[in-house]
Amino acid sequence: MTGEDDDFEAVVAAIGDRIDPGDRERQRMREAVAALTERAEEAIADLPVSGDVIQVGSTARGTWISGDRDIDLFVRFPADADREELESYGLRVGHAVLPEGREEYAEHPYVTGEYDGFDVDLVPCYRLDSATDIRSAVDRTPFHNEYLDERIDADLAGEVRLFKQFLKGIGAYGSDLRTRGFSGYLTELLVLEYGGFRETVEAAADDWHPPVRFDPENHGQAEFDDPLVVIDPTDPERNVAAVCAPENVARLQHYARELLERPREDLFFPDPTDPLSADEVRDHVRARGTTPVALRFDAPDVVEDQLYPQLRKSVSGVREELDRRGFDALRAATFADESAVLFVELAVAERPAVERHEGPPVHVRQHAEGFYGKYADERSSSGPATASQDADDSGDSETAARSGPPYGPFIDGDRYVVERDREFETAAAFLESDDIFDVALGVHVESALADGYDLLVGEEVGELAAEFGAELAEFFDPEP
Amino acid sequence: MTGEDDDFEAVVAAIGDRIDPGDRERQRMREAVAALTERAEEAIADLPVSGDVIQVGSTARGTWISGDRDIDLFVRFPADADREELESYGLRVGHAVLPEGREEYAEHPYVTGEYDGFDVDLVPCYRLDSATDIRSAVDRTPFHNEYLDERIDADLAGEVRLFKQFLKGIGAYGSDLRTRGFSGYLTELLVLEYGGFRETVEAAADDWHPPVRFDPENHGQAEFDDPLVVIDPTDPERNVAAVCAPENVARLQHYARELLERPREDLFFPDPTDPLSADEVRDHVRARGTTPVALRFDAPDVVEDQLYPQLRKSVSGVREELDRRGFDALRAATFADESAVLFVELAVAERPAVERHEGPPVHVRQHAEGFYGKYADERSSSGPATASQDADDSGDSETAARSGPPYGPFIDGDRYVVERDREFETAAAFLESDDIFDVALGVHVESALADGYDLLVGEEVGELAAEFGAELAEFFDPEP
Repeated sequence: MTGEDDDFEAVVAAIGDRIDPGDRERQRMREAVAALTERAEEAIADLPVSGDVIQVGSTARGTWISGDRDIDLFVRFPADADREELESYGLRVGHAVLPEGREEYAEHPYVTGEYDGFDVDLVPCYRLDSATDIRSAVDRTPFHNEYLDERIDADLAGEVRLFKQFLKGIGAYGSDLRTRGFSGYLTELLVLEYGGFRETVEAAADDWHPPVRFDPENHGQAEFDDPLVVIDPTDPERNVAAVCAPENVARLQHYARELLERPREDLFFPDPTDPLSADEVRDHVRARGTTPVALRFDAPDVVEDQLYPQLRKSVSGVREELDRRGFDALRAATFADESAVLFVELAVAERPAVERHEGPPVHVRQHAEGFYGKYADERSSSGPATASQDADDSGDSETAARSGPPYGPFIDGDRYVVERDREFETAAAFLESDDIFDVALGVHVESALADGYDLLVGEEVGELAAEFGAELAEFFDPEP
Repeated sequence: MTGEDDDFEAVVAAIGDRIDPGDRERQRMREAVAALTERAEEAIADLPVSGDVIQVGSTARGTWISGDRDIDLFVRFPADADREELESYGLRVGHAVLPEGREEYAEHPYVTGEYDGFDVDLVPCYRLDSATDIRSAVDRTPFHNEYLDERIDADLAGEVRLFKQFLKGIGAYGSDLRTRGFSGYLTELLVLEYGGFRETVEAAADDWHPPVRFDPENHGQAEFDDPLVVIDPTDPERNVAAVCAPENVARLQHYARELLERPREDLFFPDPTDPLSADEVRDHVRARGTTPVALRFDAPDVVEDQLYPQLRKSVSGVREELDRRGFDALRAATFADESAVLFVELAVAERPAVERHEGPPVHVRQHAEGFYGKYADERSSSGPATASQDADDSGDSETAARSGPPYGPFIDGDRYVVERDREFETAAAFLESDDIFDVALGVHVESALADGYDLLVGEEVGELAAEFGAELAEFFDPEP
């Protein structure tokens, strides 16, 4: 064993001490689950259908990180129950188990509440013969649980916890649509595949050349266009890693190498990012010489799994439109808390009053004559482009439309070309206009923008630091 | 005949009156050619080899425009004369014919001088059996002359004159490398093909869809990549229109339509362009909101056929490099007189202090680690990009290099990316630097720039109006 190996093992042992649930925590968990299960079984006995209760999730498999307090109980009903029955029976059991609980809605309604300090979800689902028969995503969970339960022993559970904590530390844990990282199930399958935490990070550091494909049950047929493909052992049609973004695969590879080269605990438990102050944001903008623009509006009141995809779609749409109009986006980001922000950092602050507009080849007579005639008429109706009528408004040339006659038509190569008034000389002028609504925006973002938004340009984005100082720190001091 | 037809014929008749050489002019031309030919034949008789004299060019074929005073006499020597002999005999005859003449050099040396108000060239060449045997371009001329002489009668000569004058009027006449238009020979071949001026412009207006190909002798084999291909009747390997730029083909098509639609004399004899004043140039720059940049230097002392290709190559090189560096050229031009100018009108005045630089995919371990290590080292040696060390030099941020640490490396998609210092934040900073000499420049342009140049930026280009007011008028009020 080299010194680095020693270091690695020492770091892993220290992390293990921090994240492995102790005997007392396990005991309390067991007792809570037993009590909740008993309550659920009693409630099921009162129903006109049969049903059973199973515990699922990381707390069922011993792979939870110490301090996690989530208990997931699924109540399975016969496959021939109709959906309305299932929902009403499920809620009845839920309220019986968690009298103080409240109803929430994912694909079905379910009941969530507290019990003895634990956060408990009580979710109805169907009892099916195969995961390929599922009617909604929750029906799949018992199959996942069963598959892992048979294969993950106490030792391997410890390895899973290390990998989970590592992914949390580097910001790549979670299959929610904000993170687009590694789900708990995926984490467990990978550790199962490689046999341990260290083996997993060594493989990621060295051997992964996306697309990386695993098929533990060797039953996959479909092709997937994702950087990481792990065929679900319980469903050959499904890529468990479908949600995992290329950035998070690359991030794992980067930090896996870091960990192996220079093992240290702060990769698992990094210091929180220091938020930037407004002045620091403005300093960055000045030093970079860019023109950031930000649209800030009230965050739409939808769950994060709806919000972030919509924000991403919206900021991509805005970015592409600004690119198309010549403002040359360097980077973009989106932030959300009380307000939501579409943030695009531009390399080009201002475009000229004119833009090149290519016409048809001169030899395509009908089109060519139409094009020439149109612009020659525009020109002769306002005289040639002598510029004198516009030259004196240079004071506010950033936003004022020139609206002079076109330059040309002239010939370039075999085509007519004109230089006509550009619609928007600055990104701000575009972002203030109604044309912003022609961009492909997320539906709730679009309606939120329609209710009103603030436009911040250049150093004005410093104002965002009060709400989004940490996000701006990540933007202006970016790390892998 | 419609009214337009009447108008067309009336215009053509009026132009004919202006450009057809009168009897007196023809008589004087004939007398001058006879006297010069006699002198040349006498001089040849004194040589130890045989030779003959032929008149070539438009004045030989009656296709010259009234007022042209060019007489071209070729002295043909036997094909077995060696080149040095040919040159020395040629010059001897030349000086005998034009005692006041001076030697010039194209492919061979020749003698040029005046006689009775005419500009006379006396050029030696070989007498060959076929134009495909030629040793230099001048050997081809007698074949062209012979071909046309047999086919162009007095009526057709008048049609050729009309087409020539029309091409002159629209700026498309001449196979010199400044104009890159229609040569005299090409003009005559086209009129021969169509049978008249009107038929030629009607075809150009309506029927031409480049590439347009003619092969009067139906003997061409080679493929040409030119918009207009006219296989030389005396040489199947040669495109007579090789030098003709796409712009000039399109220009002919455009003005042919103009002439047919609204026949008028000013298409043949346009008013000269009014030069712009310095103030008018500045007004245009302000109204267009662009950033023109101009390099002005002493015009290299080479003939126009060398100068213009070099200027064009140079301005293309500069334009492409400025594009590559993000300054987004809208148009470019080059002017030459006493001084020469490379002129590029930019849409983007200034780029940020930083530029995006993409590294390898993270999974390509060796490259990826090299890239990450390099930039992470740069960063840690100067601390993270806090910007504070640079924020206070905003006063002259247009030209000051930031030279701060890089931002990143961070991950985008599956790659490492850094934002590092941009080399030049303005086009001016680049054009003032020695990097300008890394651009592909014409050889004489490069040495002229090395001797020194002025850089004019933005409204400063108004200074060019004193020398290039007409060229700037064409630039800022462009026409087909």
